[in-house]
Amino acid sequence: MEKIYEESKLRSFTEEVFKSIGCNDDDASLASDVLISADLRGIDSHGVARLSGYVRLWEAKRINSTPKIRIVHETPSTAAVDGDAGLGLVVAPKAMEIAMEKAHKVGSGWVSVKNSNHFGIAGYHTLMAVEQDMVGIAMTNASPLVAPTFAKERMLGTNPIAVAIPTHEQPTFIADMATTTAANGKLEILQRTDKNAPEGWVQTKEGTTSIDPNELKKGGALLPLGGDREHGSHKGYALGSIVDIFSAVFSGANYGPWAPPFVSFLPLPENPVGEGLGHFLGAMRIDAFRPANEFKNHMDNWISRFRNTIPVDGKKVLIPGDPEREMEIIRRKNGIPLNVKVAEDLKEVASRLGLNVLSS
Amino acid sequence: MEKIYEESKLRSFTEEVFKSIGCNDDDASLASDVLISADLRGIDSHGVARLSGYVRLWEAKRINSTPKIRIVHETPSTAAVDGDAGLGLVVAPKAMEIAMEKAHKVGSGWVSVKNSNHFGIAGYHTLMAVEQDMVGIAMTNASPLVAPTFAKERMLGTNPIAVAIPTHEQPTFIADMATTTAANGKLEILQRTDKNAPEGWVQTKEGTTSIDPNELKKGGALLPLGGDREHGSHKGYALGSIVDIFSAVFSGANYGPWAPPFVSFLPLPENPVGEGLGHFLGAMRIDAFRPANEFKNHMDNWISRFRNTIPVDGKKVLIPGDPEREMEIIRRKNGIPLNVKVAEDLKEVASRLGLNVLSS
Repeated sequence: MEKIYEESKLRSFTEEVFKSIGCNDDDASLASDVLISADLRGIDSHGVARLSGYVRLWEAKRINSTPKIRIVHETPSTAAVDGDAGLGLVVAPKAMEIAMEKAHKVGSGWVSVKNSNHFGIAGYHTLMAVEQDMVGIAMTNASPLVAPTFAKERMLGTNPIAVAIPTHEQPTFIADMATTTAANGKLEILQRTDKNAPEGWVQTKEGTTSIDPNELKKGGALLPLGGDREHGSHKGYALGSIVDIFSAVFSGANYGPWAPPFVSFLPLPENPVGEGLGHFLGAMRIDAFRPANEFKNHMDNWISRFRNTIPVDGKKVLIPGDPEREMEIIRRKNGIPLNVKVAEDLKEVASRLGLNVLSS
Repeated sequence: MEKIYEESKLRSFTEEVFKSIGCNDDDASLASDVLISADLRGIDSHGVARLSGYVRLWEAKRINSTPKIRIVHETPSTAAVDGDAGLGLVVAPKAMEIAMEKAHKVGSGWVSVKNSNHFGIAGYHTLMAVEQDMVGIAMTNASPLVAPTFAKERMLGTNPIAVAIPTHEQPTFIADMATTTAANGKLEILQRTDKNAPEGWVQTKEGTTSIDPNELKKGGALLPLGGDREHGSHKGYALGSIVDIFSAVFSGANYGPWAPPFVSFLPLPENPVGEGLGHFLGAMRIDAFRPANEFKNHMDNWISRFRNTIPVDGKKVLIPGDPEREMEIIRRKNGIPLNVKVAEDLKEVASRLGLNVLSS
């Protein structure tokens, strides 16, 4: 069951929510843009569905709505940034700005962030770089839901990696992926529709294979990309680990099982090894390697050649970013569908903060 | 069937081979070090088993044994390098030196390379950075053997990504992975032992699932990490694509289906879109983000915490790099086993080049 909302209404509502927890106008607008962008692109699990979660973290005093984001260590091409417990939705784009400034000066910029929290869709931050003819890279660690290969215990988040690459006439290449077989949002869809998960997505708390999409609630875990050792789960585990280390060991955030939970009802892990959650953002000017026009023309050629790959009968070969871009066109026109539970949740948030209820 | 060779004998033989195709002493020693390092670490498919392949590429005038490797475009933190058709085994370490020099000056260095060829194990190059307290990153594109999700056609190489991270008392974290479910070397082992492949490793030329390890010889393809769409093969495809673009579109090398073959008996693709094969090498000083000691102590803590993850009954949770490091200890002591076919092949190379035959 879904209700349809106009983008602009959903956006103003979201801005009002962020303002009423103390964000200034710019930050409220930026944070909303990150969330609405997820909804437009069809990544419903990372859009306004998470809005009440951010509010609850603020109520639990785990989010600071007026952060002083600052560089704590830097070189011409790198920086470590303290997010001052600000919204990840605000901290990450500001950290990406720092990376891009450095890239403007010395060709590339790389920023590791501590003391932050959930930063929305990784892809959003990478697209900022593309607007300035740079390749954008974004990663974040997250609360532990994933068991390493051969493990029972949850040690890593779904730790996404996003990379966006500028083009000329072809649409931007953008990959934005959890380093697990399937993101948690896909399990939530199966839960709502009462369907089984394919094998290789989750395991039981004993580490045995499972097709129950509710396995996480029973102490089970998501599986690294690959699913099992025979299908390369040690690679997914390594990728998730690299994201964790770049995001949190570089910056001084909490890593591995110490990463703080997104939900405010779970206690923070004891004996933290750092501050908050970590991100890693990178920007490389394309003209730091070859003239920008040359690069973009070859990217156009890359994309058109791959789009024309001979497909398996009845299928189509996609370019990373195709499904989200197509969804964005549809949703900008027809509006954003929200699951009724999400709509109810937003209503509840509005009433708690004394705001007008969002109308569909 | 295998024969055992002492590391030192195998190394001198390999150096003699490279010298007799025209490499100077330093280059011969460097190229041999890359190959022997693969054999020591148990990555047999990338060691001296490939030596005759390099010789044949030189005989076919596709490798230049006296290259003038030069920077063609640069900023303080980036460079594009022309490998002048030199051995990838020599070009890549020299490109990594450039990345490291830049990192010394401005915190990080990123080098994209064109006009190169097979660079051996990606991990070798990343370990160079670790020796100087830097995180090392290496990628390369390769001849097309991999079908994108929903494709029949081979469009990408096994396009590996390696990342090595310095530690204090714990062993170096090093991940070195093909962006496919399984590397081609693993299929070769199944072929030799007449065993089936697990599902999700290869497909037929029609794009249907297969367990025949000889499928590549019949026009089939390797599958991206994930295996099929339901298990995230679009992520493996995206990772392989990113490697292809960073290695070849940044630098001006051939990308996708235009990447040149490793074997000299296959013709070069027509209408090349660039020069040779491409690599991408990166180095980030750990003290470009926080004091080196702090970083290393936290990496030690990261590794010991992950090593102590509660395992599935009867299993052990590994850290990326563990199996290769353990193999290296054994082989340094007991010698390097070579498959009899590889030993025969080296004998043939020796006689063709007028060298003394390698004795076990």
